[in-house]
Parts: sequence; C-alpha cells; structure tokens
Amino acid sequence: MNHFRSVAFIGSGRVANQLAPALQDKGIEIEGIYSRNPGEAKKLADKLRTRAINDISASIRADLILLAVSDDAIREVSERINSNFKGLVAHTSGAVPISAIGGGHRRAVFYPLQSFSHDKKVIWENVPFCLEAENDEDLNGLGELAELLSERIHVLSGDQRKSLHLAAVFANNFANLMFELAEELLEKSDIDRTILHPLILETANKVLMQSAKLSRTGPASRGDMDTIEAHRNLLGKNNTYREIYDRLTEEIYRRTHEQDL
Amino acid sequence: MNHFRSVAFIGSGRVANQLAPALQDKGIEIEGIYSRNPGEAKKLADKLRTRAINDISASIRADLILLAVSDDAIREVSERINSNFKGLVAHTSGAVPISAIGGGHRRAVFYPLQSFSHDKKVIWENVPFCLEAENDEDLNGLGELAELLSERIHVLSGDQRKSLHLAAVFANNFANLMFELAEELLEKSDIDRTILHPLILETANKVLMQSAKLSRTGPASRGDMDTIEAHRNLLGKNNTYREIYDRLTEEIYRRTHEQDL
Repeated sequence: MNHFRSVAFIGSGRVANQLAPALQDKGIEIEGIYSRNPGEAKKLADKLRTRAINDISASIRADLILLAVSDDAIREVSERINSNFKGLVAHTSGAVPISAIGGGHRRAVFYPLQSFSHDKKVIWENVPFCLEAENDEDLNGLGELAELLSERIHVLSGDQRKSLHLAAVFANNFANLMFELAEELLEKSDIDRTILHPLILETANKVLMQSAKLSRTGPASRGDMDTIEAHRNLLGKNNTYREIYDRLTEEIYRRTHEQDL
Repeated sequence: MNHFRSVAFIGSGRVANQLAPALQDKGIEIEGIYSRNPGEAKKLADKLRTRAINDISASIRADLILLAVSDDAIREVSERINSNFKGLVAHTSGAVPISAIGGGHRRAVFYPLQSFSHDKKVIWENVPFCLEAENDEDLNGLGELAELLSERIHVLSGDQRKSLHLAAVFANNFANLMFELAEELLEKSDIDRTILHPLILETANKVLMQSAKLSRTGPASRGDMDTIEAHRNLLGKNNTYREIYDRLTEEIYRRTHEQDL
C-alpha cells in the first residue's frame, strides 16, 4: 500500500490555503508550495514553516503533488513538473478529467466537495472527498490521506464526478441565486434580509432530513393560483424576477401535478 | 394594553397543530379548536385538553381568535364568526391582506414565517413573527404573545408582508427545487444524494454569515466558459435541467459581469 507521507502543493488559492494546514495538522509533511504568484506561495509556505518552491521543473521530493490550481491551468502546470518526479500527481477539481494531468506522471483526483471561503475555516470532517486513481494502490493511499480529515470518502469515476460537479452547481450556485433574489426583494421593500435566515436554514435542514422532493411546499406545489397571480402582479412584467418566478413555478407545478396523476 | 390570555383556533392544520400547543406551554389558555373537519378539531382539542368548537357562529369566549386556515378560506370563515365576539380576529397568512378578515371584527395578522412540517417540531425561538394590527393596543398585545415564543418580532405593513411572502417563495420553494434537481442529477449517475448534504448546509450557512450576493461562487460567477460548456453538453438539449441551467447561469454571469464594469 502506498502511504503518502509528504505532499507538495501547486497553487496558493482557497483550496491550498485550507487543505495544506489541515493535512499538516494531521502529521503530513508539507514539502513545499509552488504558485505562479511567488509572493502568495511564500506567504502560505511561511505560515506552514516550509519552503516556497520556485521552480517545479526542478526536483520535488514529495510522495504526492496536489494541484490546487484553476481548472484551465491543470494541464499546463502538470506538464511542467520535473519529469523525474516519481510520486503521484493529483488534481483537486470536480470538473476536470484525470486525463488533463500531463507529463507522463501517475495520475489521480483528490476532490473535496465543498464551497471554500477565504476567511471561514473549513470543518473538514463534514467534507466529502471524491477520489479517482489509475491503480488501487494510489486509490488506497489517497483514501488513507482523506480519512485523516473526513469520514466521507467516495470513489467516483470521472463521469460521476462530472455529474456531481454539475449537481453541485444547482445545489450551491443556483440555490444561492435564489437566496440573492429573495434578499433583493426584501431590500426593495425595506425589510431586513436577516428575517429570512431561519427559513433558509430550515430549507436546508429539511432537505437533509427527508429529500428535496418530499420537502416541496408553497403555492405552486399546492396549485394555489390566487397566490401565484398575486405574486406575478407584484413582480410586474419583463424582469428577471418575473421570468425566473414563472419558469420555476411552472416546473414545481408540473412536478406536483404529474405526481398526482 | 391589551393582554391576550385566551386564544381560540380556527383551523386544525400544520400551523394550528404547532402553534396551539406552543402557546399553551407558555400559559395561554386555548379556549377551543374549530375546524371544518370536526374529527381533526376534536383530535387537536383532546391533545390540548380543551373543547372542540362545533359552531363558530355561537359564542366564543376568547380574547383572540387565530385563523389558521387556508388563504382562500379566511374571508368566508371570518364572516361566520359570532358577530357579538368582542375580541381580536387575526389570520396567520403571509399572502393575504388584513382586509380579507370580514364580519366587522377587530382585525390583525399574526404570521409566523416558517415552513411547517407535520412531524418535525418547530423551534419557535428561531421563527420570525410578522405582525400587523389596526390599532397600537392590539399590535402590542400580539407582540406580547409572540414574545412568549420568539425574540424575532417584526411589525410589517400588508405590502411588506406580501413582498416577504414572495421572497420566501424564492428562498424556500425555489431553492428547494434547485436541491431537487441536484438530487435527480445524482440519481441518474448512481450517486447517493447524501453526498451533497454538507454542501447544502454550507450554502445556507454562508448566506447567513455574509449575504447571498457575497456568497456567489461557481463557473458562471468566474466566467469559466469551458466548465459551462461541459455542463451544457452533459445536460443535452431541450430538457428542464438544461433550460434552467442556461437561464440561471446567464443571470449569475450577468450580475457578476455588471458588477465588474
């Protein structure tokens, strides 16, 4: 079995800034940090009392290189890694196939499914890790590493991970847009946005308890046309709120209606 | 100041079933329960060791009648209340104006903003109460009553409450639809839906910390066209997922782009 005792990071963004200290806390050696922005690499390296890597085409003595860079940089950056590097190269992206890793290295994916902030510390034990590797040894080694941080380890194919990433856009980006539109509607009516906070939290908690399908409520699911008409009048015509209201109301109505058939 | 020491409920649905026991626990006398479904009224009345009201046109000796009925029943049911009733009549709806209460009674709104389940006990201290009344005395009395359960008391006009109700549809019903679409995308790819739970919870928690506008992330907000194209290809054409994906992606992109100008 492959044990990854030392890890080098390429990238100094949100993922690296959260993941590197967490792994170090669990006894993993952080061999160094490389970033296209040397100042950022040095900042994170200093925090971890390790070295900033100035040149990834030079020798890197780590068991694992984690690519925590933007999706479109994965190929280019992996191809610049020293060709004598004998360890595993894993990217941390949900949307990119394993094959994007170039340079002839052993390849893998180590994708933590969470929305990372700059300032808010990640609670790692709640973060699902989605793993993919080209051989069982590397897969087991990555599983061991992920288990240091979380109990939620998933082995997913590249196609599954792509679907998961897409689903996460609905669950995070699009749900957040709904919250944003709601905040704006309140602002227009001079109501403090915090009034919705308990409902937002309950919305999430309900889905966790019983699935979103079973959590469906509201005028569209009840077929309450009077309320829907009142909402549409309130929104007026030809604006984003109204268009999105109509499209999503139609969809909820259709689902609930079809279910009744 | 008007103290509401005894309350009669009209309605035996989710709101009455959660609110009546909670008020009773705080020392409020539940004078009786009326429902168009006498069996349901008796069931809730028995639970509260009070009487089922068989006829609301007969005398009701309560300080306050709470109408916890469906929106379209508020007018009709309030007109049937005994015309000698001297107390306050308040409905509990977000979408209906105070003027829907008929029968010549003193009128008010006592709207708890939450998504009520049949089986899950409401944590009342987190529930915002939105109040409206025709005079200050009744408003203060309702405020006193709400404060027994929650610290979140809001005095809103009818127009504000209408906007709030609409905003709640975005924050709850539409966000829930996003979670539902996400769950389905996972199901199609044979991935357990619980993998998204930590992200869903974090999505809500982030909004509570810093507003939805500041929580915007993902390919559309980054302008990451490669990922958007990959998602669109994965979704295929002419289906609900794709239509909603395109519309909401466009909106997030527009917002982030405009902000950059």
